[in-house]
Amino acid sequence: MKKELHFDRTEFAARVSAVKKEMAKRGIDILLLSEPANQNYLTGYNAYSFYTPQAVIVALNHDEPIWIGRFMDRISAVMTTYLADDNIRAYPDRYVQSSLSPCDFMAEVAIELGGEKARIGVEMGSYYYSARAHADLVRALPLAEFVDADILVNWIRIVKSSAEISIMRQAGRIADAMMQRAIDTIEPGVRECDIAAAVYHQMMSGTPEFGGAYTCSPPYLCIGERAIAPHAAWTDEPLPASTAINLELFGNRHRYQVNLSRSISVGKPSASYQKLSEIVVEALNAGLESVRPGRTCSDVEGFFRQALARHGFEKEARLGYSIGVGFPPAVGERTASLRKGDETVLQPGMVFHMMPGLWLDNVGITITQSFAVTDRGHEPLTSTPRKLFVK
Amino acid sequence: MKKELHFDRTEFAARVSAVKKEMAKRGIDILLLSEPANQNYLTGYNAYSFYTPQAVIVALNHDEPIWIGRFMDRISAVMTTYLADDNIRAYPDRYVQSSLSPCDFMAEVAIELGGEKARIGVEMGSYYYSARAHADLVRALPLAEFVDADILVNWIRIVKSSAEISIMRQAGRIADAMMQRAIDTIEPGVRECDIAAAVYHQMMSGTPEFGGAYTCSPPYLCIGERAIAPHAAWTDEPLPASTAINLELFGNRHRYQVNLSRSISVGKPSASYQKLSEIVVEALNAGLESVRPGRTCSDVEGFFRQALARHGFEKEARLGYSIGVGFPPAVGERTASLRKGDETVLQPGMVFHMMPGLWLDNVGITITQSFAVTDRGHEPLTSTPRKLFVK
Repeated sequence: MKKELHFDRTEFAARVSAVKKEMAKRGIDILLLSEPANQNYLTGYNAYSFYTPQAVIVALNHDEPIWIGRFMDRISAVMTTYLADDNIRAYPDRYVQSSLSPCDFMAEVAIELGGEKARIGVEMGSYYYSARAHADLVRALPLAEFVDADILVNWIRIVKSSAEISIMRQAGRIADAMMQRAIDTIEPGVRECDIAAAVYHQMMSGTPEFGGAYTCSPPYLCIGERAIAPHAAWTDEPLPASTAINLELFGNRHRYQVNLSRSISVGKPSASYQKLSEIVVEALNAGLESVRPGRTCSDVEGFFRQALARHGFEKEARLGYSIGVGFPPAVGERTASLRKGDETVLQPGMVFHMMPGLWLDNVGITITQSFAVTDRGHEPLTSTPRKLFVK
Repeated sequence: MKKELHFDRTEFAARVSAVKKEMAKRGIDILLLSEPANQNYLTGYNAYSFYTPQAVIVALNHDEPIWIGRFMDRISAVMTTYLADDNIRAYPDRYVQSSLSPCDFMAEVAIELGGEKARIGVEMGSYYYSARAHADLVRALPLAEFVDADILVNWIRIVKSSAEISIMRQAGRIADAMMQRAIDTIEPGVRECDIAAAVYHQMMSGTPEFGGAYTCSPPYLCIGERAIAPHAAWTDEPLPASTAINLELFGNRHRYQVNLSRSISVGKPSASYQKLSEIVVEALNAGLESVRPGRTCSDVEGFFRQALARHGFEKEARLGYSIGVGFPPAVGERTASLRKGDETVLQPGMVFHMMPGLWLDNVGITITQSFAVTDRGHEPLTSTPRKLFVK
């Protein structure tokens, strides 16, 4: 069977090794990972199967991670991971949406790895580690000690390898192509859903050299009154002759996501709206130019804030967040944020989406930039010009 | 501000009333709902914002539900729900991915509703009710009694109103259009990602009369070796001159999902593969024809199983599941399954996806039918012919 691994075995080994080092430091014997992105990061596993319980277990005393999932997804584990067959464990269908708990199956694997009385790390804040899953595991492993190891792996994957950055450059090119397609499609009279359709088409077809993948979130297409509702769904309404559009798009390649937002004015923008866009770009550039290893997230946000304050504006929400490999519904990595007080020190290989949306009472501008931290500064991962587009 | 309500106020009132009746029966004073589909069902709320903590609280002593979410999503709550402004509560950005817990904010609202010592129902198995959320709430409300009210609302929404069925008919028409577009696009040499692109385009543009929405799951596009991996992602590879494709698509309208799977043979299928498809359709039809109010899910599965057994086949996975309003990553409603032993009695207004995939060692056929239970039998919600398509 054809394997679909996007990284060398050595890269996976380095990732697992870094996780084990952190486990040892925290005294964790067994780490049970529920977050699909972390499962993908450590094993390569890639299928949309995590809506039924699924786990990857890393044990200090076991070389490879162990994947546990539904029997019909075993084949995806064989195809997309480097794991030996014995490290792929599947529970039968009778566990699916029934009175039986797949956590009992997971607990048996943990016990096999010496986990009966072990210190077990779990991801307490993961979308896919429900309150019930935790209760079931605690019941099935009454002698074990459970500790919160949420975002332990996320903090390791925050620094990307050069192979990962290469993939994110491709995701960025897809995001650029999506934005161009959106701008091309936007015209008065076009239904909102048809703009969404064009954007999705480009998201998947990508470029002639490489295609795209499903994203962690639908595109945000915020029009007119809804321009101030950042996560609204589109409608069937035709675009009016004059309106403001805020578009947030996500290019995805091999599960790596790169974000890109732009504002588009249908019809000539007012002078004040045009001015607002220029202020946002100025502050965005000030933030970007301040990026370098050794500075903190808080420092970078400060440079942005200062530039914005010169025009009498401030922004309530955080300025950005770390991005990388992801699955729905996670838009960010849940680690570092570009915000006041976040003292995370920037390192080469970190990737952020800087998103200085500026929202007034009834209008907003969102012009953003995803970038990688480099040895000396930053590398933009998209090349769409930073400006208000006018159609 | 323009409201986007897809149901009458009276329909929402009836839903809330049914939930309160069930709460009273179980002695639940306050119900805290984490599942986005349940939030949508009871309030109309529709935005992709649930990746940050969000809740809808139904209290026996309070008329309307209360929506709680992030400050920037307040505007979507105003736009898409019927709730009075005072029943829309937003927490500030400092709670987002920080050391502060939005559950403290939620607990304050619960206390305001007399919940300090109340019996509080929570959705223990919801994707969006993490182990941490539960621990935080228990800490913030130490005198309250917590009970598992998982899928309480799901069991109420399993029976759809005629307004909901109308929307699901539209979702079915979108699914049909998607399948036709896929069949039109599939040709040797076309990249898999370009088939995905065409499918997504149709998913969103829908029909000339109405558009589509993002779905609970990406389409499944399983080709060649991966035809037996039901939830695999597509690749960039061009289609070979001869291959088998299993496609599972989801039409979505106003967050209601209708599923549709078909197998497509690129190149002339072998006689045995053609025969396999005919057996599946025969068993599918036997299952469908057996549907009527009063029979159980288990009964229906039995008719299917019997028809399949006549050809010496059996199917391990369940035959289907209830569908309706949904958000990622949930493909089904997590209630009734068409499987042996599920004694749920069919009622008019229930909707299922009957999915008799038949998997052999290296090949599979999947020809499915979504349907509503009617007064006398069933109404198919898609009209794509039940057969193996050949390209």
